[in-house]
Amino acid sequence: MGGHHWPVDADVRHAVDELYADYAEALDEGPIEAWPELFTVDGEYLLIAKENHDRGLPIGLMRCESRGMLTDRVRSITQLSLHAPRVLRHVLGPLRVRPAAGTAGDDSAPSPGHSDHSWTVTASYVVFQTLLDADTHVLSCGRYLDLVVADGDRLRLRRKVTVYDNPLVPNSIVFPL
Amino acid sequence: MGGHHWPVDADVRHAVDELYADYAEALDEGPIEAWPELFTVDGEYLLIAKENHDRGLPIGLMRCESRGMLTDRVRSITQLSLHAPRVLRHVLGPLRVRPAAGTAGDDSAPSPGHSDHSWTVTASYVVFQTLLDADTHVLSCGRYLDLVVADGDRLRLRRKVTVYDNPLVPNSIVFPL
Amino acid sequence: MGGHHWPVDADVRHAVDELYADYAEALDEGPIEAWPELFTVDGEYLLIAKENHDRGLPIGLMRCESRGMLTDRVRSITQLSLHAPRVLRHVLGPLRVRPAAGTAGDDSAPSPGHSDHSWTVTASYVVFQTLLDADTHVLSCGRYLDLVVADGDRLRLRRKVTVYDNPLVPNSIVFPL
Repeated sequence: MGGHHWPVDADVRHAVDELYADYAEALDEGPIEAWPELFTVDGEYLLIAKENHDRGLPIGLMRCESRGMLTDRVRSITQLSLHAPRVLRHVLGPLRVRPAAGTAGDDSAPSPGHSDHSWTVTASYVVFQTLLDADTHVLSCGRYLDLVVADGDRLRLRRKVTVYDNPLVPNSIVFPL
Repeated sequence: MGGHHWPVDADVRHAVDELYADYAEALDEGPIEAWPELFTVDGEYLLIAKENHDRGLPIGLMRCESRGMLTDRVRSITQLSLHAPRVLRHVLGPLRVRPAAGTAGDDSAPSPGHSDHSWTVTASYVVFQTLLDADTHVLSCGRYLDLVVADGDRLRLRRKVTVYDNPLVPNSIVFPL
Repeated sequence: MGGHHWPVDADVRHAVDELYADYAEALDEGPIEAWPELFTVDGEYLLIAKENHDRGLPIGLMRCESRGMLTDRVRSITQLSLHAPRVLRHVLGPLRVRPAAGTAGDDSAPSPGHSDHSWTVTASYVVFQTLLDADTHVLSCGRYLDLVVADGDRLRLRRKVTVYDNPLVPNSIVFPL
């Protein structure tokens, strides 16, 4: 394979795999408090319907613009105790990892607030839900459009946009995907 | 882990991961024109029911024997404009990568038309379909039986056989899986 | 990415990917006789409902405490010829790989019966089932809680605990997941 030029090296891809395994575990198994820690301090999260995203409408079901807002969201989820009688499972399609525009190999212009090393990561996701004594079904299906950065000793999400393909039932949308 | 002998090295596995991420993205997100580019010029694609495949019957729902035929197929898909009101998501099981017989570590006998470096890749696949204002369901499920080769500066598909487990509804089979 | 400390190196993660690809293939495609070979000689397998697992009840639907017991299980499955008219497909969420407590980087105290190199591996799994002339559905969904060890020239399962989220239909539980 000599002379081939991969868009990202194996170590980065490996670390991206780790990040998404941690992400799925935080949401499926908990503790949900681990979820905000996977974002940078200035990390953003947007949960938006495909129909709105395709039209460029910035109207999302959930929007957080910092880790503090993510933590607030977690607090309201745990206070409402909504996740008792169901189990969620995140399964992802192949992760597509690319150096983010203007940052790859460019050590001279670090962006404020996060590392100068960043990658776009896209993947299809499916979340399966099992309710008590009921069959498993697809709760949501869609695409992640993410920006991942090196932050301290690990990778974190600088921005995560979860674009879901179909309208969700109202009582499910308080939980991040 | 010294002294262990893995069937393929981490760089190859990494590049295979990239190829299948590109494959899923081309079909799920488009542009569909990127799909033929993931095959070699002499690349073959066969979409076949498990029942026929297990019996050795070469009767497939779609058969392309070159990148030119794949491009023709893309042209007819885009002209028919069939993919407006639905969204597809490819999710794969673990990829099994093995050096292809007669080629691993054998630089002396390159096959005509493609690189002397090639690997068989097998994986289960599931394609989820979401129709407008409807629940997500499994469109197709089955197994990839592929031959991947180093071609120029990247890996490409020399042959892809998609074996689907259950009969598909007629209006879905014009689209590759 | 210099100076970053990943919990496991890329080679180990790569080998874990291979192990789970082999596992899925043994159960989905066969031969099923390859399944016990993915465990150590003293390998354990437990298939247990989430409800029981969460309560600390050790009551599982299937429990094998050695490779010999796994082989016996395979023999009864093949004699009953239960797997004719259906196809299974294993799809996994992201694999989370961590050095096992007390063993990582500790070469001085090898455990009897297996290597001193071991890792915990957790992942969500979904198994899709396609019956003859029927739609594909989710047979089972849940979580793997595994202990993987270096054993000879490859990784093997020292312990696999498959925790399933919903009760399974009776005729499916004779088959491992």
